[in-house]
Amino acid sequence: MNNPIRFVLVETTHSGNIGAAARAMKTMGFSELRLVSPCKYQTTEALARASGADEIVTSARVFDTLADAISDCTLVYGTSARPRALEWSVAVLEEAARDMAATVSCDNPGSAAVVFGRERSGLSNDELALCNRRLSIPSNPEFSSLNLGSAVQVVAYELHRALHATTPPLAPAVPQAQSVQDSVDEPAADSQSMEHFYQHLQRIMIQTEFLDPDNPRLLMRRLRRFFSRSQPRTTEVQILRGILAAVEKKLNR
Amino acid sequence: MNNPIRFVLVETTHSGNIGAAARAMKTMGFSELRLVSPCKYQTTEALARASGADEIVTSARVFDTLADAISDCTLVYGTSARPRALEWSVAVLEEAARDMAATVSCDNPGSAAVVFGRERSGLSNDELALCNRRLSIPSNPEFSSLNLGSAVQVVAYELHRALHATTPPLAPAVPQAQSVQDSVDEPAADSQSMEHFYQHLQRIMIQTEFLDPDNPRLLMRRLRRFFSRSQPRTTEVQILRGILAAVEKKLNR
Repeated sequence: MNNPIRFVLVETTHSGNIGAAARAMKTMGFSELRLVSPCKYQTTEALARASGADEIVTSARVFDTLADAISDCTLVYGTSARPRALEWSVAVLEEAARDMAATVSCDNPGSAAVVFGRERSGLSNDELALCNRRLSIPSNPEFSSLNLGSAVQVVAYELHRALHATTPPLAPAVPQAQSVQDSVDEPAADSQSMEHFYQHLQRIMIQTEFLDPDNPRLLMRRLRRFFSRSQPRTTEVQILRGILAAVEKKLNR
Repeated sequence: MNNPIRFVLVETTHSGNIGAAARAMKTMGFSELRLVSPCKYQTTEALARASGADEIVTSARVFDTLADAISDCTLVYGTSARPRALEWSVAVLEEAARDMAATVSCDNPGSAAVVFGRERSGLSNDELALCNRRLSIPSNPEFSSLNLGSAVQVVAYELHRALHATTPPLAPAVPQAQSVQDSVDEPAADSQSMEHFYQHLQRIMIQTEFLDPDNPRLLMRRLRRFFSRSQPRTTEVQILRGILAAVEKKLNR
């Protein structure tokens, strides 16, 4: 699951955030963490927050400057929320993730890095100038301050998604319908067994005087629409018929 | 920026995670936090982690049970990473977010909730059974343990994206979503009325000896899965309750 996308944190001041970033990276299959002039970071808190991703913290590489940290990368995205005087083009995260995924997955792959700034002040203009491109995480314009670990998590999530998008589409190609119906490895009930079910249901509705056969209104049509909407499985229709049969037996005693 | 998607945290044990969840919600424009039997949560740590989203923590509503917390919601997603014996359909986060966005944005909007389980053990099977659907966050199969705050962050991010998709809601393209939500111009039944329906159905199943209360097996769970799949409309639940009431009346004569 290793892949050549590096996560670079610049002058992080809270070691807990480094641990949280490591955990976030690992949940999405990333492992290469680079730290530029970090605080003392192999702390109890960092390892506690890493919570199983300790080796990403302990194997992180440390650099004096951002230029050093990204020197071997061919595509570098700097993250930024704040508008700048000299406005660079800013990709939204999703595009940026696709761009990085394409860079590391093509026939002649490069290596990509995504750079995160300081907790309080982000990246400086000089640091952003070292990056090829900028990305921003879409957020609430009135409160866009993601915690550092959360920002890493969201970026890692999108990168994971972009990297796995090219591989044969997971199941979700046909989203809802398929996931809902195929989840159970059972055949859908056929039309005949649905008809038998409707007849059975109608018989009981008449017997209990819920349905007046001389004035059926739209009741059966509404029930058909309801039951057909979820495309019942064979076993589900069997259960429903079982309930009806149990009711009928008691009624006719 | 307010919108009717609720975030529900069940039996959270670390107050810092509640603060982190509040901050994550606010960064994506959400504000309604519900807590089921939480730890003592208005702590210094929670407010520090909320970091500007304090009012979401202090205005969170507290409930004794998950059923109470979601009683006014029409579409409820439970988050889950673990596979279950009786496998429900699991939507990947992106689909689930589109589904919820469609539910709250359509002409006759319902209200949606997304439920997060305990830090260690997630949601119980009984709790998941109260949800209409399940979602999972795509992640590294070898290390999928997102921190609670991070899970809330990623879900909030996808919901924000789905709600702000510039294209007319993608959801209607999805067969399931459309057939479920647009087929009838009526509001979906809320969770409380579905619970009353299930209780009524169960009562009759026991009375007719179809269900042995000492050995319920997976019957109720299977029925819940079946009925929740089609997101019944309010009037449909009324019809189903009417059938049950008519049967009950005859049985008790």
